[in-house]
Amino acid sequence: MDPRIREHAQVIATHSVDLQPGDNVVIDGHPVAEDLVVALHEVCGDVGANPITTSKRAGKRQHRAYLQAAGGGFETPEHELALIEHTDVYIAIRAGDNATETSDVDPEISSAYSTAYRPIQDERLSKRWCLTQFPAPANAQLAEMSRAGYENFVWDAVNKDWAAVREHQQQLVDILDPAETVRIKSGETTDVTMSIAGNHTLNDYGERNLPGGEVFTAPVRNSVEGEVLFDMPLYHQGREITDAYLEFENGAVVSHSAGKNEELLTEVLEADAGARRLGELGIGMNRDIDRFTYNMLFDEKMGDTVHMAVGRAYDATVGAENEHNDSAVHVDMIVDMSDDSVIEVDGEVVQRNGTFVFEDGFEA
Amino acid sequence: MDPRIREHAQVIATHSVDLQPGDNVVIDGHPVAEDLVVALHEVCGDVGANPITTSKRAGKRQHRAYLQAAGGGFETPEHELALIEHTDVYIAIRAGDNATETSDVDPEISSAYSTAYRPIQDERLSKRWCLTQFPAPANAQLAEMSRAGYENFVWDAVNKDWAAVREHQQQLVDILDPAETVRIKSGETTDVTMSIAGNHTLNDYGERNLPGGEVFTAPVRNSVEGEVLFDMPLYHQGREITDAYLEFENGAVVSHSAGKNEELLTEVLEADAGARRLGELGIGMNRDIDRFTYNMLFDEKMGDTVHMAVGRAYDATVGAENEHNDSAVHVDMIVDMSDDSVIEVDGEVVQRNGTFVFEDGFEA
Repeated sequence: MDPRIREHAQVIATHSVDLQPGDNVVIDGHPVAEDLVVALHEVCGDVGANPITTSKRAGKRQHRAYLQAAGGGFETPEHELALIEHTDVYIAIRAGDNATETSDVDPEISSAYSTAYRPIQDERLSKRWCLTQFPAPANAQLAEMSRAGYENFVWDAVNKDWAAVREHQQQLVDILDPAETVRIKSGETTDVTMSIAGNHTLNDYGERNLPGGEVFTAPVRNSVEGEVLFDMPLYHQGREITDAYLEFENGAVVSHSAGKNEELLTEVLEADAGARRLGELGIGMNRDIDRFTYNMLFDEKMGDTVHMAVGRAYDATVGAENEHNDSAVHVDMIVDMSDDSVIEVDGEVVQRNGTFVFEDGFEA
Repeated sequence: MDPRIREHAQVIATHSVDLQPGDNVVIDGHPVAEDLVVALHEVCGDVGANPITTSKRAGKRQHRAYLQAAGGGFETPEHELALIEHTDVYIAIRAGDNATETSDVDPEISSAYSTAYRPIQDERLSKRWCLTQFPAPANAQLAEMSRAGYENFVWDAVNKDWAAVREHQQQLVDILDPAETVRIKSGETTDVTMSIAGNHTLNDYGERNLPGGEVFTAPVRNSVEGEVLFDMPLYHQGREITDAYLEFENGAVVSHSAGKNEELLTEVLEADAGARRLGELGIGMNRDIDRFTYNMLFDEKMGDTVHMAVGRAYDATVGAENEHNDSAVHVDMIVDMSDDSVIEVDGEVVQRNGTFVFEDGFEA
């Protein structure tokens, strides 16, 4: 076994989920990630935790077969809910043998399933959880990289000094957390303003997401105004959406378009009432993620980017006085900020063309 | 996908577990059985049942890693127990990529784990459950067969007319169910007598075990007297035990030996108080299983054999007036009855050299 796999398992256990004796653990993974699943079982044995492996989130071929055959009428699976309710730690390993395995599932069916599955997703998010990546060949292919090159990319991003990352990112948290208003401008196509007053800004240093490397908060629910062209593509339900464009009034999307798979974007926005509003504003700060790999877990952490998610806000980001945007969906989309772009906080420029006010080379 | 795989999934769903709309289903399988897992997901979607896939029983490489690292101190995993408690149907698929994967785990550790795991195993057995086989290459290798040959062997045994099997086997059930005493003699090495008075004889026609093809009951707990040489080998925890010999007094094993891995047999018998007593007497009647494949799911169903299991009795076989033999283990062992052998029931010969009294060619 590549020694970086055992290192990866140790980072998950000790840094991300703080594994404790007696913890009940669910590891969700595809067979291509078997080495990491085995390494996590070793760590569980060492610590005295109780692991079980599922292929729910990761088992896309079987899940596609189920969705296609069912076609609708989904219920919340009570046995799976009971499993997660009695779980302390949930570890999801992203990896598969075909990144486009669910590409022929009707988005309406997927959305209906997500809605029924929502209580389980909520329960997972209330645990010590971690979403990570195993460098499977199919993901290397999606990233247009060799397998060995992609392995280096993933493990360099995962097995790192997370205390140093935390310290660097805290400088941006200290700016955003007390702030009222954020404005993001990029080229001629993006100019959006939102309130974050009273909401909390969090420092993602590789706990819930591994790799981590972003700072994020929730927009105040009705405050978003303006337009955004997400000029970096995203994969949703196995299909690519390019040039997603959203126009906001009073916090809600009032107009949208996309270059490719616009109808999929439409499905997302129509999933429920909360799907038309932003649940997250995130700012990528991980400059070790130096290329776009069609994988949101990495892409949203890239330096010189911001991302916004339509749908559900993370509980921890929403202040007690503010309304929580609730939805069955949470879909991230990215804007490249490396050129002709600024982030303004309460009228002050805090980032220009990707460089922060607290970094060398910043020009106000 | 081989059409026999979808047929297999249909037999499981409609014959073995009587899958119903709304059923919560756990499918435990190794990745090598992925096609069958996918086919079962299709059936679940068609019927309106809710599947989740686990790799607990089937994930031997990860399980070995966990057992080796833990070394003991096992607890009953409460999340897994909660999952099974809320499950209606449990389908275990036997298959792996290495039949000897757990061969270097200390039997004492495995036994300790089985003891902690017991409440989950009990809960599974209270559901509509099915244990079946996928013809993986490693299982073909164990059977000393080609992959294609083994596929034919497995699917011929699984995808068959179970109503006809039921009818044929019922003739033996009708003899044993009201009977008092069974005596089994084979050559110079096996002569054992036991009471089955008040216990129930069941007809296995492919429900809980797929393939099925046996008739089985429980010996009355303290009644077993005599000696048995199990002249067909068995695999337990990834290792072969040959020529297991047991001598019984008042129902308990008072002396034992084995040709190979005797210490493993000793571990089994010392697992707990019930492990020294028989929990099952079974009579193989499936003549389509015409060769020994080192796989108890098939081997115990072979025509011209009987098997006895030390350890736990199946609840349904034990009469209300009789004591239930309770144990964390249930280990089947087989006697070849094709030559110089008889089964006597209440003093009457009902099988000689493998041929039953209700079959052509029987000689009293």
